[in-house]
Amino acid sequence: MITIQDFKKVELIVAVVRSVENHPNADKLFILRVDTGEGGERQLVAGIKGHYTPQELLGKRIIIVSNLAPATLRGAESQGMLLAAQDGEKLAILTTDKDVKPGARVG
Amino acid sequence: MITIQDFKKVELIVAVVRSVENHPNADKLFILRVDTGEGGERQLVAGIKGHYTPQELLGKRIIIVSNLAPATLRGAESQGMLLAAQDGEKLAILTTDKDVKPGARVG
Repeated sequence: MITIQDFKKVELIVAVVRSVENHPNADKLFILRVDTGEGGERQLVAGIKGHYTPQELLGKRIIIVSNLAPATLRGAESQGMLLAAQDGEKLAILTTDKDVKPGARVG
Repeated sequence: MITIQDFKKVELIVAVVRSVENHPNADKLFILRVDTGEGGERQLVAGIKGHYTPQELLGKRIIIVSNLAPATLRGAESQGMLLAAQDGEKLAILTTDKDVKPGARVG
C-alpha cells in the first residue's frame, strides 16, 4: 500500500507523438519525439515495436511519466516513460478518452 | 525527479466500470463499482460528476491506482483512484487504446 503523497511524487502528463523512428541498435524499440506542451518536446525510447506501426502512433495522445530521471537504452536517451497496459502478449497504450492539450496533468 | 523504483511503487491497473451512483452527500462525486479482474470488484469515489454521465461511464475501461490506502470521501470509502487528465475546465479519463482485460497491469 502507498499513500497519496507517494503517488503525487509521480508526475504523469499527456503528450502527443510527433515522430517515430527505429532504434538503430534494438529490434523492439522505437525512438519517439513527443510534444509535451508549451513548446516542449522530448525523446522517448519505448518497447512497443511489433505492437504498433509508426503510422498508428503519429498524432496519438499518450501518457508519460514526465519526472523520471533520464535513462539510456541501448545508447539512446529516454526522457520519460510511455505507459501501456500488458494483457498477456497484447500491449495497449494509455490515452485519454477526450482530446486534451499536450502537457495536461494527470491526477 | 524520481527513480524507476519510486514509480514502480505505484500499482496502476485497468478496471471496467460496472455501476455508477450519485454520492448521497456530495454534488460532484460519483460512487463507481469497478471490475478489477479475476472476480475482483472495488468501490471508487470519483469527482467526475458534471463531466460524465453514468451512461458514458458504464462499461468504460479506466485506469486506477490500485495500491493506494483506502480513503473515506464524505462518508464513502474509495478503494483506489481513477486517473484523469485536467485541461483547464475539461476533464478526460485515462483509458487504453485497445480492449484489454480488467486487471491488466500498466507499466
